[in-house]
Amino acid sequence: MEITVNGKKRHYRTIWMENGIVKAINQPLLPHKFEISELQNYRETASGIKNMLMRGAGAIGAAAGYAYAQAVLGAPEQGFQEFMEKAEKEIKATRPTAIDLVHAVDRVKTGIRGMGKTEAEQKAAEIAQAIADEDVKAGEKIGENGAELLKDGSRVMTHCNAGWLAFVDWGTALSPVYKAKRQGKKVFVYASETRPRMQGSRLTAWELQQEGIDYRIIADNAGGYYLKKGEVDIVFVGADRIASNGDVANKIGTYMKAVAAKENGIPFYVCAPLSTIDTSIDSGKEIPIEERDEKEVLEMWGKGSGGGIETIRVSPEGGKAFNPAFDVTPAKYVTGIVTEKGIVKANNKGIAKLFG
Amino acid sequence: MEITVNGKKRHYRTIWMENGIVKAINQPLLPHKFEISELQNYRETASGIKNMLMRGAGAIGAAAGYAYAQAVLGAPEQGFQEFMEKAEKEIKATRPTAIDLVHAVDRVKTGIRGMGKTEAEQKAAEIAQAIADEDVKAGEKIGENGAELLKDGSRVMTHCNAGWLAFVDWGTALSPVYKAKRQGKKVFVYASETRPRMQGSRLTAWELQQEGIDYRIIADNAGGYYLKKGEVDIVFVGADRIASNGDVANKIGTYMKAVAAKENGIPFYVCAPLSTIDTSIDSGKEIPIEERDEKEVLEMWGKGSGGGIETIRVSPEGGKAFNPAFDVTPAKYVTGIVTEKGIVKANNKGIAKLFG
Repeated sequence: MEITVNGKKRHYRTIWMENGIVKAINQPLLPHKFEISELQNYRETASGIKNMLMRGAGAIGAAAGYAYAQAVLGAPEQGFQEFMEKAEKEIKATRPTAIDLVHAVDRVKTGIRGMGKTEAEQKAAEIAQAIADEDVKAGEKIGENGAELLKDGSRVMTHCNAGWLAFVDWGTALSPVYKAKRQGKKVFVYASETRPRMQGSRLTAWELQQEGIDYRIIADNAGGYYLKKGEVDIVFVGADRIASNGDVANKIGTYMKAVAAKENGIPFYVCAPLSTIDTSIDSGKEIPIEERDEKEVLEMWGKGSGGGIETIRVSPEGGKAFNPAFDVTPAKYVTGIVTEKGIVKANNKGIAKLFG
Repeated sequence: MEITVNGKKRHYRTIWMENGIVKAINQPLLPHKFEISELQNYRETASGIKNMLMRGAGAIGAAAGYAYAQAVLGAPEQGFQEFMEKAEKEIKATRPTAIDLVHAVDRVKTGIRGMGKTEAEQKAAEIAQAIADEDVKAGEKIGENGAELLKDGSRVMTHCNAGWLAFVDWGTALSPVYKAKRQGKKVFVYASETRPRMQGSRLTAWELQQEGIDYRIIADNAGGYYLKKGEVDIVFVGADRIASNGDVANKIGTYMKAVAAKENGIPFYVCAPLSTIDTSIDSGKEIPIEERDEKEVLEMWGKGSGGGIETIRVSPEGGKAFNPAFDVTPAKYVTGIVTEKGIVKANNKGIAKLFG
């Protein structure tokens, strides 16, 4: 994507690797500050995934691939296998719900099977790079496929951020909006702010501004109001894991929006690449849901009056919270899944078609 | 309610009037600071309602009654009627969705009809006081009626704050929880934080702590997750206006929770006194929805690292938002309405019974 920082427009990916160093847009600082973080080794990259320095299905996948390649670089010649097994566990444990992460690590791991460290170094970096490059291509294709669902004047609702920042480029739920715009269609976006981490108001709103697309941020609570009012034509969300039957794990809050969309007869599409589909599980019941620190709910960060990033407490001293990061939307609420291989029904048959 | 401030327990009402001065707990400062604001005349009280110094159906109603009584005190002998008409308009315009406000003003107005200023002063203050006193009684009775729906171990979900702080005392949605506790039942509460103004995490959590009730704050997005998981036994919410057919206007986000509750077979009760019912309208379609300043969505306030109340920006510079303060939940999602006169169905017959 083209990002304008301090008046200068430049092309960026969300994450990339240079000479064994992973570079990524620091997402918790956005939209207040644009900064590229440099992660020197797999541990720093794994920690970046865990702390959501980069987040979103595809960006996590790419980061995990790069992290595994960094682990190969950092591994000793002696005890190479043991080191890699430990690294694999550490990387996979960072975000339990996200399946792109597992797929990326497994793909690099399989690609270097049987190789010694020296041979594996080059190969691991190549595969990690291929994962990132394919993410970009898949995102663009999802945009083309999804844009067919949009007309001039369409009003789209989205949740969280499934734009470029959630992937390496393009994204999923927002990619159709970006493609539609390039096709000359005017599209309006309702961006739900997405507590607790505000990816909607911090990231989606910023992306949409960068892309010159008209939008309004709404409190998560207001989703149903606009769906019921008939002011939303279609809902596009991303996914963190899709089961074989079409059940979708995505950012907490997706489920209520899906139910309200169905109740009001509004099409609800999940946009995701094949790498987000987990054919090893039958249904969403098998998807582990990540519980994050209650502090994310009890506090909030943003730009303070002094211009720096500040954290404020929005709850009583001693207050307690639950903080599930995802929920599962049963397939029956999903109108279709927009993938790089076309739009399919959210059921076993539709998903099987993608892998046929 | 008994409030412990700096280790001392004392009985407080949310709002009261002393010698023509309205005193109210300053709610935007909670839970970080406990302070009583003093409103010298009807304009200050009206402005307090508008800026949500006090908020919640009953507290707004009591404030409006007191404000009208303050207007009588502040009116000139000459031109008394004109002054009062202007004051009435100003007070009624503060919060368009809340019907308790209209009912309170109309009741004081009717009570002093035909009186001159001197005679009206005493009478207006008496009626305003009666409105506040009846709010307390109604809240307690709603608590008794609602507590019958709770068992030992019940898990209640609520939205926004419909506790003592939203009324003069006791409240509505939380009153059954407080009564159940006094009956020896252990009740757990899921308090959704309620963006944009965080009445759930700032006020409900603080009230529940004061009452010694176990709870967790959840992001508004997490409501559906717990409803679907079977970890909620009943939902209790308040109301800002109920139409003759049982449609309910309440804090934005109520509608999505109601839909998700019905979808999962979980009883959804609206707790409200008769003063919140607007028999002059047939359905929720006639309820005006207040749109508030977009800043409430683009920003957030809380306790900063320095200990003071600070406002932070949680969205990009130039970001735009919509901010509807309420939504309407159609009667079909409402299991029942818990009033001071008993629990009735949310339909024309049920509501007619209350006024029969």
